[in-house]
Amino acid sequence: RSLHHRSAGIIGAPFCRGQPRDGVERGPDLIRAAGLLQKLHEQSCAVKDYGNLAFEDVADDEPVGRVKRARAVGSANRRLSEAVRAVKQDGHTSVMLGGDHSLAIGSIHGHSAAVGDLSVVWVDAHADINTPLSSDTGNIHGQPVSYLLHELHAKIPVLPNFSWIKPCVSAKDLVYIGLRDVDPAEHYILKLLGVKVFSMSEVDQLGVARVMEETCDYLSAKVKKPIHLSYDIDAIDPSVTPATGTPVSGGLTYREGLYIAEQVAQTGLLSAVDMVEVNPLRGETDQDVRSTVNMAVDLLLACFGRLREGNHSPDYRLPEP
Amino acid sequence: RSLHHRSAGIIGAPFCRGQPRDGVERGPDLIRAAGLLQKLHEQSCAVKDYGNLAFEDVADDEPVGRVKRARAVGSANRRLSEAVRAVKQDGHTSVMLGGDHSLAIGSIHGHSAAVGDLSVVWVDAHADINTPLSSDTGNIHGQPVSYLLHELHAKIPVLPNFSWIKPCVSAKDLVYIGLRDVDPAEHYILKLLGVKVFSMSEVDQLGVARVMEETCDYLSAKVKKPIHLSYDIDAIDPSVTPATGTPVSGGLTYREGLYIAEQVAQTGLLSAVDMVEVNPLRGETDQDVRSTVNMAVDLLLACFGRLREGNHSPDYRLPEP
Amino acid sequence: RSLHHRSAGIIGAPFCRGQPRDGVERGPDLIRAAGLLQKLHEQSCAVKDYGNLAFEDVADDEPVGRVKRARAVGSANRRLSEAVRAVKQDGHTSVMLGGDHSLAIGSIHGHSAAVGDLSVVWVDAHADINTPLSSDTGNIHGQPVSYLLHELHAKIPVLPNFSWIKPCVSAKDLVYIGLRDVDPAEHYILKLLGVKVFSMSEVDQLGVARVMEETCDYLSAKVKKPIHLSYDIDAIDPSVTPATGTPVSGGLTYREGLYIAEQVAQTGLLSAVDMVEVNPLRGETDQDVRSTVNMAVDLLLACFGRLREGNHSPDYRLPEP
Ligand SMILES: [Mn+2]
Ligand SMILES: [Mn+2]
Ligand SMILES: [Mn+2]
Ligand SMILES: [Mn+2]
Ligand SMILES: [Mn+2]
Ligand SMILES: [Mn+2]
Repeated sequence: RSLHHRSAGIIGAPFCRGQPRDGVERGPDLIRAAGLLQKLHEQSCAVKDYGNLAFEDVADDEPVGRVKRARAVGSANRRLSEAVRAVKQDGHTSVMLGGDHSLAIGSIHGHSAAVGDLSVVWVDAHADINTPLSSDTGNIHGQPVSYLLHELHAKIPVLPNFSWIKPCVSAKDLVYIGLRDVDPAEHYILKLLGVKVFSMSEVDQLGVARVMEETCDYLSAKVKKPIHLSYDIDAIDPSVTPATGTPVSGGLTYREGLYIAEQVAQTGLLSAVDMVEVNPLRGETDQDVRSTVNMAVDLLLACFGRLREGNHSPDYRLPEP
Repeated sequence: RSLHHRSAGIIGAPFCRGQPRDGVERGPDLIRAAGLLQKLHEQSCAVKDYGNLAFEDVADDEPVGRVKRARAVGSANRRLSEAVRAVKQDGHTSVMLGGDHSLAIGSIHGHSAAVGDLSVVWVDAHADINTPLSSDTGNIHGQPVSYLLHELHAKIPVLPNFSWIKPCVSAKDLVYIGLRDVDPAEHYILKLLGVKVFSMSEVDQLGVARVMEETCDYLSAKVKKPIHLSYDIDAIDPSVTPATGTPVSGGLTYREGLYIAEQVAQTGLLSAVDMVEVNPLRGETDQDVRSTVNMAVDLLLACFGRLREGNHSPDYRLPEP
Repeated sequence: RSLHHRSAGIIGAPFCRGQPRDGVERGPDLIRAAGLLQKLHEQSCAVKDYGNLAFEDVADDEPVGRVKRARAVGSANRRLSEAVRAVKQDGHTSVMLGGDHSLAIGSIHGHSAAVGDLSVVWVDAHADINTPLSSDTGNIHGQPVSYLLHELHAKIPVLPNFSWIKPCVSAKDLVYIGLRDVDPAEHYILKLLGVKVFSMSEVDQLGVARVMEETCDYLSAKVKKPIHLSYDIDAIDPSVTPATGTPVSGGLTYREGLYIAEQVAQTGLLSAVDMVEVNPLRGETDQDVRSTVNMAVDLLLACFGRLREGNHSPDYRLPEP
């Protein structure tokens, strides 16, 4: 096992309209400021930074039913989809720095537009699979998966700026890890579609090592599709990553979170990553923010081959006296 | 696996004479104030609140040997025993909110008076099995199990207000989980009686999943008796539940604590729960108290069927566009 | 399983020249002040305190290449080696309280001088196996293992005050636990020599119980050599032991750290322990320092037979009414 000499194509997506709390749009700059690019370089990973996307402000973005900010979310994700597609066409592993998790719509859509059928590993405290009609809050960051699944297409109403979205993921190609706050509607959908779910109960029961073994077996049982890893920082326990909008007790430890990223990287199939929901305004102290951002950086380093046992390049020579 | 449609009969036991620290008598009201009843309702659990027991103050409650407050403890537990018996006769799962752990005497006694032979799952940093004569401190919250076990009956001296207590549990029907601060006398007793113990060493060695598998196998190997779950909040690590009288490092994680309650609930045999030793005066900050009380509430929700993978009612229908 | 009636011979080594941060020389006195000796007594362990070693100050200790403070480190370790040899010759289990981890040179050297071939269990976030020539920082606390291994002898240049050191450990007799911050040169060496390493990835993958099972099997597969346990407090997670010079996220939990010590003790082969890198000046609060020192004490108690299930002496008798 050695460093993967992949290249990372980084897209900043400073967007927060998929949920009600300001601050999450600062995620991309914070993660860069914590040294992501330099640390990737240091571990022999080529990096191209595509900069931050500019999202237009949408006036008159009134709720559609209970769905909030549909026009802004639809428009931002269309732009993001094109950006991710371009990064993939340039040959990089796409790294989308959010922003809120509604951005997974564009990120996965654009990824699929470039490479075809995908597997999705969704690491999150939440399932984010409410339909626009089942959602209680109307926040789209709790709904992205519903727009992406073929099987839910008939349940999705028309929304402004959403017509460009075509479902591109099959329920059988989706694995959840870390769930612990799931709405009844979401639980109904997950059971109906037979989605592979490792909630925190299963992580407790099986241990993270067997969860990842089963995840990788499940995803590579048939054709080995490129993997889209959509990582919501709130999957991790709030004691480690408090600076996020909807923290939930009982999350993944720092080590479990890292192990998941390491194991996905070791498949050799990782093709795109989302790192979302880092919100510096939700931390109470600087240390809260630092800890959250560092977790995001460490997860991304693991995605690009960093191992805790260490790494060395094949041409290393030990100095002699 | 779906929600258990059991009903909870809640008894508050604001009692602190089994140990020397003020504050633990505030447990019942704090746990209610954190929304226990409403949250149980929301998960389709019927609830009847029997209110708080009124315990008479006992004057001239001088130590008997080293045993402190014997008269108050004996009297309060007699009242509690009757209350739990009534709750069970009303058909509810009994929920006793302490108060200190000496209250397990009355809770288990009353439970057994109503339903007969019990299994007891005792989740605690401590074994609470000192006899009145082996105890160094004389605090009765470190002794309740000794009064309840048939096998220790000959070791128990006469104490004022204790004559109503008849042993009602067999050593083979008792399982401990979470022990890490066990007195030599207690260790001697546990070995002598061959009690099933999963100390924190065993939790580390086997993992909580196998601990619960073995616990449930052990308890249902023969006749399936109703389970009394006596949960001392100090079983959980002090980083999660600091607001308690005798915290001990190296406890159960939030997730392990929850997993234990989930698995006991899944047996379908849970008949009574004690939730004890929440002491708001022992937390250094409001956050300490909140975290401790939230753990108590989350444990009780798990006892009544809440699952981290989510729950939905059998008649849920997904809205269509 | 009962208490081991071994005796502990305690050597304080208030030394900090193996790294750049003041404070770590206070370790021995702090660990004693937290009650180590009395607690060992209470668990029926005989104790002889040999006091603190006096290390001479070395003037003109200029770097040799990049290696800093070579003369001081060489001189202090020579003294320590003699002290540990004497403790072993007196028949005690040696307990070396550091001080920084460069002291392992003298501790292991002296241990081996007294008892011959050793196994070494090195519990640390770091491998401390840089050679003087591969080290980037030149701090000798990151190099001690390189001086001790037969296999690296040809890679070690001449250093002032180091000529007395003869390699005394074989790579096959060394096991690492807890690694998570390993330099490329170190990773190269570990792979080259085929050293048994349980990095935090392996701890996550196998669980600490299987790690210890494999460690003990590995070490006792052939001749059962005396075990030298070299415990760097930074192996433990910084949330538990923040008061140390080079903390690294994602460490062993309190429980895992303790389990390792318990299992090494249960082999019956533990012959010497180092407890190093406790640095009170690196904690931000008193609680940080207390928590770090308490971990060190609890680890040492476990090394001398303390079990979380409890212990009782064979002649214990339960009082009768
Ligand atoms: Mn999410
Ligand atoms: Mn989430
Ligand atoms: Mn208790
Ligand atoms: Mn307790
Ligand atoms: Mn270290
Ligand atoms: Mn070290």
